[in-house]
Amino acid sequence: MSPAPERMSGVLTPVITPFDTNLRPDTERLIRQCRWLLSQGVGLAVFGTNSEANSLSVAEKIELLDALVAAGIDPGRLMPGSGCCALTDTVELSAHATNLGCGGVLMLPPFYYKGVSDEGLFRHYAETIERIGDSRLRIYLYHIPPVAQVGLSVDLIERLVHRYPDTVVGIKDSSGDWNNTASMLDRQWHDFRIFVGSETFLLQNMRANGAGCISATANINPAAIHGLYSNWQDDGADDAQRRLNDVRSLVMDFAMIPALKSVVSHFAADADWRRVRPPLVALSDEQHDNLIAGLTALGFSMPGL
Amino acid sequence: MSPAPERMSGVLTPVITPFDTNLRPDTERLIRQCRWLLSQGVGLAVFGTNSEANSLSVAEKIELLDALVAAGIDPGRLMPGSGCCALTDTVELSAHATNLGCGGVLMLPPFYYKGVSDEGLFRHYAETIERIGDSRLRIYLYHIPPVAQVGLSVDLIERLVHRYPDTVVGIKDSSGDWNNTASMLDRQWHDFRIFVGSETFLLQNMRANGAGCISATANINPAAIHGLYSNWQDDGADDAQRRLNDVRSLVMDFAMIPALKSVVSHFAADADWRRVRPPLVALSDEQHDNLIAGLTALGFSMPGL
Repeated sequence: MSPAPERMSGVLTPVITPFDTNLRPDTERLIRQCRWLLSQGVGLAVFGTNSEANSLSVAEKIELLDALVAAGIDPGRLMPGSGCCALTDTVELSAHATNLGCGGVLMLPPFYYKGVSDEGLFRHYAETIERIGDSRLRIYLYHIPPVAQVGLSVDLIERLVHRYPDTVVGIKDSSGDWNNTASMLDRQWHDFRIFVGSETFLLQNMRANGAGCISATANINPAAIHGLYSNWQDDGADDAQRRLNDVRSLVMDFAMIPALKSVVSHFAADADWRRVRPPLVALSDEQHDNLIAGLTALGFSMPGL
Repeated sequence: MSPAPERMSGVLTPVITPFDTNLRPDTERLIRQCRWLLSQGVGLAVFGTNSEANSLSVAEKIELLDALVAAGIDPGRLMPGSGCCALTDTVELSAHATNLGCGGVLMLPPFYYKGVSDEGLFRHYAETIERIGDSRLRIYLYHIPPVAQVGLSVDLIERLVHRYPDTVVGIKDSSGDWNNTASMLDRQWHDFRIFVGSETFLLQNMRANGAGCISATANINPAAIHGLYSNWQDDGADDAQRRLNDVRSLVMDFAMIPALKSVVSHFAADADWRRVRPPLVALSDEQHDNLIAGLTALGFSMPGL
């Protein structure tokens, strides 16, 4: 049995998922991409929102996770998204990831039913943890109300941390609202790892004792984001933050997931990377060209890809 | 191979799902409930929103569906919900239901990714239909923007109906907005079955050439709702509609799914029916008592349950 993982920190990215011509996940391309991201200092929050994870079945995710570990990717650097609508799906995927030795799981709340109570969400997480019944389980909560529409209140998080202090060990805050992140940092839960969901808040988070960031744009700009994480106390940190923001804000002018795939496709000279699963749609050629032209004007590149 | 099903009409209900003490779906109780609903004239839209279907895995739904058909429930009266977030899940569940001879499937759009385009949703439905590749497949679209947050525009529906006229044969409109229903009725797509998502609009829908309703409260008030469907041209129809509205509006003062389970639990004298899966929470005893008292004051009962 693998040992209990250390708590995670640093920069991770929801790795974009390549698809073949039949819209099946492309295992070999994903392995290559993960290796490259690790070489840039960035951990692997596979099956995040920007991985199109919610367009994949549990079986597809388990198959990919097995393939990554079989290919020699260090499971300790993996934080797969594992929160599904159905309790039983969340349990199956989280237990599998824990058994593989993953550093943790990034767990969405069940997101179909809206207006649910903190009590109901507490019971969902508690039931999930009890069913898995594995002391190695490390849950990073995933708060992303703009997409999931079901959020996690600070009081609910505190209740979970107090009840399961060795299991509920961190959060990704993708609210886009620094005040929400700050309100969690203020509570100073013991060794609780608070990741912001965008590198835009990375320097601010590090200065406030945060753990790092888990960001979609770390798919394309990993070394620079990891650089700011490593050197946030340096004199040039504010300038580095501004340069990260310039890249991010350019990409944000487009639909995020297709845009990330366009960028990787361009710099890897691999048109297959542009493919997305419905309900998403790839960027048009014109959008693609505009995005690449904008990045080129910023002097952006993806060395080693 | 089963024959292609007839297009459906009438009153159906998203059958509430009973759970055992381990929160597993309770097959025997579900079979009994389905038989009772059929005896009241109401069809079985199992795995709807009010079935807590999105708290069940695909495997759990397939197992239940198999058990219902094995128990002798007429599959032609079944319209299981089959729309999941992941294309592959939607295909698996819809294909299975079609193979069992189900009268149709009620298909949510993929609902995790928000702000998706009509083009992306069209591709999702088209890819689903092409993958299933079964001429017996009958899709009833499921438009429920208050919960799914991803809706189906009238133009998108028209595009699907024109491309797949023998497959995309109807819709459940749970927008709660009669103007939306009317805008579809106005298009007069050939033999397209338009169900309203609440019996509140049943009489209005029948007068406008609609197909019926698929309503949560038909779990508890099936005979009366089916009665209005059958007798909508009678003199007493407006009065019958008002009586239906009284029951519905009382239930709507509570959280819908736990309230339906409380009512069935009370009239079946079976406390196990109150159980819900997280993230939902059963009504408190006080809420339960208030709901039952309100229904009793209306002279409400559930004969034969």
